[in-house]
Amino acid sequence: MSGNKIVVYKEPGVVEVEDHDVPTLEIPPEVAKATGMSRKADHGVILRTVSTNICGSDQHMVRGRTTAPPGQTLGHEITGEIVEKGSDVQFLDVGDICTVPFNIACGRCRNCREGHTGVCLNVNPGRAGSAYGYVDMGGWEGGQAQYVLVPFADFNLIKFPSREQALAKILDLTMLSDIFPTGYHGAYTAGVTTGSTVYVAGAGPVGLAAAYSAQLLGAAVVIVGDLNADRLAQARSFGCETVDVSQDATLEDQVAEILGINEVDCAVDAVGFEATGHGAGAGEAPAAVLNSIMSITRAAGRLGIPGLYVTGDPGAPDDDAKEGTLKVRLGLGWAKSHSFTTGQCPVLRYNRGLMMSILHDKAHIADAVNATVIPLDEAPQGYRDFDQGAAKKYVLDPNGLIPKAA
Amino acid sequence: MSGNKIVVYKEPGVVEVEDHDVPTLEIPPEVAKATGMSRKADHGVILRTVSTNICGSDQHMVRGRTTAPPGQTLGHEITGEIVEKGSDVQFLDVGDICTVPFNIACGRCRNCREGHTGVCLNVNPGRAGSAYGYVDMGGWEGGQAQYVLVPFADFNLIKFPSREQALAKILDLTMLSDIFPTGYHGAYTAGVTTGSTVYVAGAGPVGLAAAYSAQLLGAAVVIVGDLNADRLAQARSFGCETVDVSQDATLEDQVAEILGINEVDCAVDAVGFEATGHGAGAGEAPAAVLNSIMSITRAAGRLGIPGLYVTGDPGAPDDDAKEGTLKVRLGLGWAKSHSFTTGQCPVLRYNRGLMMSILHDKAHIADAVNATVIPLDEAPQGYRDFDQGAAKKYVLDPNGLIPKAA
Amino acid sequence: MSGNKIVVYKEPGVVEVEDHDVPTLEIPPEVAKATGMSRKADHGVILRTVSTNICGSDQHMVRGRTTAPPGQTLGHEITGEIVEKGSDVQFLDVGDICTVPFNIACGRCRNCREGHTGVCLNVNPGRAGSAYGYVDMGGWEGGQAQYVLVPFADFNLIKFPSREQALAKILDLTMLSDIFPTGYHGAYTAGVTTGSTVYVAGAGPVGLAAAYSAQLLGAAVVIVGDLNADRLAQARSFGCETVDVSQDATLEDQVAEILGINEVDCAVDAVGFEATGHGAGAGEAPAAVLNSIMSITRAAGRLGIPGLYVTGDPGAPDDDAKEGTLKVRLGLGWAKSHSFTTGQCPVLRYNRGLMMSILHDKAHIADAVNATVIPLDEAPQGYRDFDQGAAKKYVLDPNGLIPKAA
Amino acid sequence: MSGNKIVVYKEPGVVEVEDHDVPTLEIPPEVAKATGMSRKADHGVILRTVSTNICGSDQHMVRGRTTAPPGQTLGHEITGEIVEKGSDVQFLDVGDICTVPFNIACGRCRNCREGHTGVCLNVNPGRAGSAYGYVDMGGWEGGQAQYVLVPFADFNLIKFPSREQALAKILDLTMLSDIFPTGYHGAYTAGVTTGSTVYVAGAGPVGLAAAYSAQLLGAAVVIVGDLNADRLAQARSFGCETVDVSQDATLEDQVAEILGINEVDCAVDAVGFEATGHGAGAGEAPAAVLNSIMSITRAAGRLGIPGLYVTGDPGAPDDDAKEGTLKVRLGLGWAKSHSFTTGQCPVLRYNRGLMMSILHDKAHIADAVNATVIPLDEAPQGYRDFDQGAAKKYVLDPNGLIPKAA
Repeated sequence: MSGNKIVVYKEPGVVEVEDHDVPTLEIPPEVAKATGMSRKADHGVILRTVSTNICGSDQHMVRGRTTAPPGQTLGHEITGEIVEKGSDVQFLDVGDICTVPFNIACGRCRNCREGHTGVCLNVNPGRAGSAYGYVDMGGWEGGQAQYVLVPFADFNLIKFPSREQALAKILDLTMLSDIFPTGYHGAYTAGVTTGSTVYVAGAGPVGLAAAYSAQLLGAAVVIVGDLNADRLAQARSFGCETVDVSQDATLEDQVAEILGINEVDCAVDAVGFEATGHGAGAGEAPAAVLNSIMSITRAAGRLGIPGLYVTGDPGAPDDDAKEGTLKVRLGLGWAKSHSFTTGQCPVLRYNRGLMMSILHDKAHIADAVNATVIPLDEAPQGYRDFDQGAAKKYVLDPNGLIPKAA
Repeated sequence: MSGNKIVVYKEPGVVEVEDHDVPTLEIPPEVAKATGMSRKADHGVILRTVSTNICGSDQHMVRGRTTAPPGQTLGHEITGEIVEKGSDVQFLDVGDICTVPFNIACGRCRNCREGHTGVCLNVNPGRAGSAYGYVDMGGWEGGQAQYVLVPFADFNLIKFPSREQALAKILDLTMLSDIFPTGYHGAYTAGVTTGSTVYVAGAGPVGLAAAYSAQLLGAAVVIVGDLNADRLAQARSFGCETVDVSQDATLEDQVAEILGINEVDCAVDAVGFEATGHGAGAGEAPAAVLNSIMSITRAAGRLGIPGLYVTGDPGAPDDDAKEGTLKVRLGLGWAKSHSFTTGQCPVLRYNRGLMMSILHDKAHIADAVNATVIPLDEAPQGYRDFDQGAAKKYVLDPNGLIPKAA
Repeated sequence: MSGNKIVVYKEPGVVEVEDHDVPTLEIPPEVAKATGMSRKADHGVILRTVSTNICGSDQHMVRGRTTAPPGQTLGHEITGEIVEKGSDVQFLDVGDICTVPFNIACGRCRNCREGHTGVCLNVNPGRAGSAYGYVDMGGWEGGQAQYVLVPFADFNLIKFPSREQALAKILDLTMLSDIFPTGYHGAYTAGVTTGSTVYVAGAGPVGLAAAYSAQLLGAAVVIVGDLNADRLAQARSFGCETVDVSQDATLEDQVAEILGINEVDCAVDAVGFEATGHGAGAGEAPAAVLNSIMSITRAAGRLGIPGLYVTGDPGAPDDDAKEGTLKVRLGLGWAKSHSFTTGQCPVLRYNRGLMMSILHDKAHIADAVNATVIPLDEAPQGYRDFDQGAAKKYVLDPNGLIPKAA
Repeated sequence: MSGNKIVVYKEPGVVEVEDHDVPTLEIPPEVAKATGMSRKADHGVILRTVSTNICGSDQHMVRGRTTAPPGQTLGHEITGEIVEKGSDVQFLDVGDICTVPFNIACGRCRNCREGHTGVCLNVNPGRAGSAYGYVDMGGWEGGQAQYVLVPFADFNLIKFPSREQALAKILDLTMLSDIFPTGYHGAYTAGVTTGSTVYVAGAGPVGLAAAYSAQLLGAAVVIVGDLNADRLAQARSFGCETVDVSQDATLEDQVAEILGINEVDCAVDAVGFEATGHGAGAGEAPAAVLNSIMSITRAAGRLGIPGLYVTGDPGAPDDDAKEGTLKVRLGLGWAKSHSFTTGQCPVLRYNRGLMMSILHDKAHIADAVNATVIPLDEAPQGYRDFDQGAAKKYVLDPNGLIPKAA
């Protein structure tokens, strides 16, 4: 542990790999100061990263669509091996390979006790909810790195039963830290169950994970919409139907061609605020996706909204959108008695079950999202390719631990 | 049954009592034509109205804020006595006094089977969901009348166990057809339970019913906000705290003064689209209430939205709002992981339990909303007084059946 | 429609096919008399049976383990085509092919409104809940026949979208009337979800349907236990693990050999009161299965109990069991904070979704339960073979409507 | 802190107050050995007890109806002030007055994460679930003492907002550690909601708390059954109806006299295994209460079973009961589609909300259960009086901290 190579946001469009100090068992000073917690993290562990993925929500920062400052470290999708642990870590040991939920949670506040680990009250002085390597999330170091501190480790981490199995299935298991549970949360809160017809807006990794999760939940038909042909092909690769929202044919018409009727039982918004309007040549339209899923969801349907909406977007097309105020067809949703679930996925609610599905060969999420391993040093190129729409989920390998066969 | 006096919308600001034919056991011809149902309603009953209330949502029509045409008959809050029944009404008899859910439901479609009676698929050719005497709701006659047809009576109606008790408690029981379940639905879907702190936006009858329901559900503190001093006084009459949103002090500050913190566990929007902005002199601002309840609800909180939002509002302040598209602070709600429940209350989900609470002297909703009986002929004056902010819930007595002592 | 061939229970071990009158649109006189309903069933339809299955619960009657009298008509798993309809059937037409839930429900009582169609309050004078062709269930004629009356048809029936598709998939769709939803109910109420480990006691058709449903619900591992080698082989045919409870190795040990630990997340009792104890040579032990699933289910787990327990069993081994009083290890269940769900499956809660799964090729239940078509006349032989443990689900073809290719 | 006076079970019928060492921040050695946890409890606090109650489940031990050995320390209903804290206690401070859930939970295992704190997997080597001062619960010291160790304090403890308010309402707040949440759990899992009719078997403190909770949950009518006239009078003191099960009139008949029908919506078993049969002169009958609540609960109803059932009862009337195997009318429950929830109440699921109700003067549980303060030295007399049926809930005051006015 002579140093810690880590991905850092430098300016819009630019990330670099820097060499920082290896993290210690200490929480960020601003968190300690604001909350009264001790700097020393007896509850924490240091992980050597086994795998860590580039996420679409990282792109919002890198594109300059958030208030992230230069120097922001990146990475919140982390799987790693414990190399050091604090004195109050009781149920984990050095050598354990664990999955890390992207949301940092104390496990001791009201929200954590109630399962709302996405909005923990104790680890981010600015607001409820936190994450590694993300703007406005408390100042925790990113995990696109060789090492990372995980606080409240007994609560946050889930250990894989077998080291060999973990490494053999690492490309599936690495998705447990964020996109698999996040996609599943979208589908689950949309009410997907046996026999549902489902529309998923967005064929990026979260959209694909939502579509795959909808299948796991028993959907009869899953339709994925996007304007990127490669990503739509990726969705079809595991049995989804697709609609191309860059076509002039309306979403309703394209859905009707597939289902015979122009509505679905459940819908998921896996796009969020950087949405594009419908049809050829449509420009950015922040509420376009949300409004479109209301239009094609049946009365009494539920909408899962894992796609990110923010309170500050300096690059937004208008002043309202800069503050996260969007033009929503509320009248339509109300007329259809829709219910909406928003927010960060509370990963701990789902990751154990999804892990079991992977370990017992029931879920093959890596194939669904086209997991692609690259070295940590190539992260900048990975960011660029992903931003240009590569139908891939980039998995970084900071310590050369990912087996070739994985 | 020589004729049927009934309240009719004539033009913005004007309602009149007209004399129509007594209804027969026949559904509206446009419903029959569009759905293939038989005109003859073997499943229906004719009720002699015992009580029927003026509702805030009627006011939207009367103020010209909907597309209701002149001649629209009014009234969907109905309690009555069966005077005639169809051949397939198996479990009710002539003479039974029953409460009528304002939503008309077939009891035979997917949505009704699943308890979503607010969006029945069979009784309104235009969209899911229906009601008596309301624009775009299928053309069913209004119930602010001496007689009214209730289709699918075995499914829709709940009979009161005793005629004497029903008449004695009629001012409470009359609220079962709409505002009591609607307010309860708002509080329930907002997650109100034992020990909750609750904010209810709006102190009209639905807001008061939501506040009262929050108490029944066990809330520790219920705070009601409005700009009408009389209605706030009404809220205080049964133990609510209040905030005056016409004051310049922010909602957060006023809540903090009551609770010590500036957020609540649960919030209810009992205002809907004809909302007014915060502070002295604020004008109409359709999303103001929805946005305000996001700002004061805790992370992971739920928002119940029984207040009406529409898809067509000719009197709206801007073109977006005319179509029901409002400027919603979605970024804020998402950051707090809020969940939202919208739409018509499915009355049958709640009215039986609320009836039991009334009959066993556990709920006194008439006092909470200040039920005030007037003759049917005075309905026009009732509409005017209510529109001007009277802190009263007007109950019409079309057949002189309401006992003086009630 | 010159007559109605129908399967009738004659005495323990004996059923015969008799020729009865074709049913008319009239409910059983004893139901009409006790409930006040009209004899004439304007709400009913007459179905020409397309398929109708022999059920394990029929066997309880045929083995003399209930109070069913000689002459009891049999059959409650019915799929058919409407050949006549009452005047108040609004949403179905002659020629529609429909699935019939085995539970008869009025669609108008409190329990039906709340989705508890397995315990409808109006159609069985003796108790809550009813079924076709079953003892103590209200006297409704059985459906192992050419024709059958279905009351409250709009509520009870679900029409298949396409006649051709319905006939092509009839062997899957025929399972919607009972065992597929019943098995699913067992798994669902046991809390099976993505990643669960599940134990299903019993590899008869309901057990196999529960196991298959557990897979649909996303189970990581499904273990089926029985003492019949053919039935266990059937369970393995679609990916289940199995344990042989006639072996001396304990259930815990056999489970541990499969999972590495001796407990599962969820368990289903698909056996019911005619249970056999564990181990070679074990005899009848009515609570053996229920107690065994408590022993291997994790603390906080849930137990689904679709297997039938009765209030009167003349053939029981002791006086308590004759009244349905069994020796239950309640202390064990309580120590583990178990929850239990018992009773008839409310088919309408699940059959629509399961139909969608079949129609979209996501569920292949006929293969899982080894559906085997026989003519109605061979029903007596089917009963005998099934009773002797054939690993088959017998589907009767009373009108020669099942395509050869199905 | 020169010593720790503590209540100890000596032999059947005998408890004594002994002087032990003050506890240190160390977990029981057998727990550490079996689980691999460190002896040193950096996560723990030492509380100076403010109040600690005698519980009905303590009586099972004292009556010799469990396998508790002589020397077993007693007490699991604890409220106290932090006098020392471990290095990893981040969100609590010395001087905080806190309520202690009777179930000890780690806050870090699967069950704790899922809210099942009554069956924590890490703190009791013998089985899932633990408690202070109880047989087979891991060897944790009892809290009927001046001082007690609380492990995993950040997770387990809830701090009262104000010291003054806490002391002023201590007789209500002391019930948060067990009987108020336990009674509430019984009512909640029985499905009690607005308008329910409820039967609570048992008018001891848990039964009274269940009845009071049913009222908080909105019940229309709450009926309490017992054979102790004083306890029934106590139930009537806060508005319950009562039935005397020592009378010969059946439970059904007594319920029918109150409600007009012989069934209720929901039922709670607040008696457990030391039940007595119905009628004058009935003797012990371990399943009598459970069977009776099945008989009077409606079809589709739910049964909450907070009353304790055990796996080992040396004093039971027969060999089956000695192992916790009871004669349950399973056939009856199944015919009625009943659901059952058993086990220890997971206190953390409810205590925060109930605390809010107390602090905001919405719940007055101390009056409902007749809280009666006695010095710690009088605990032996309190045990005797309680065992003889005193309609009181005894609150011990080990450090003289309970204000006279409380």
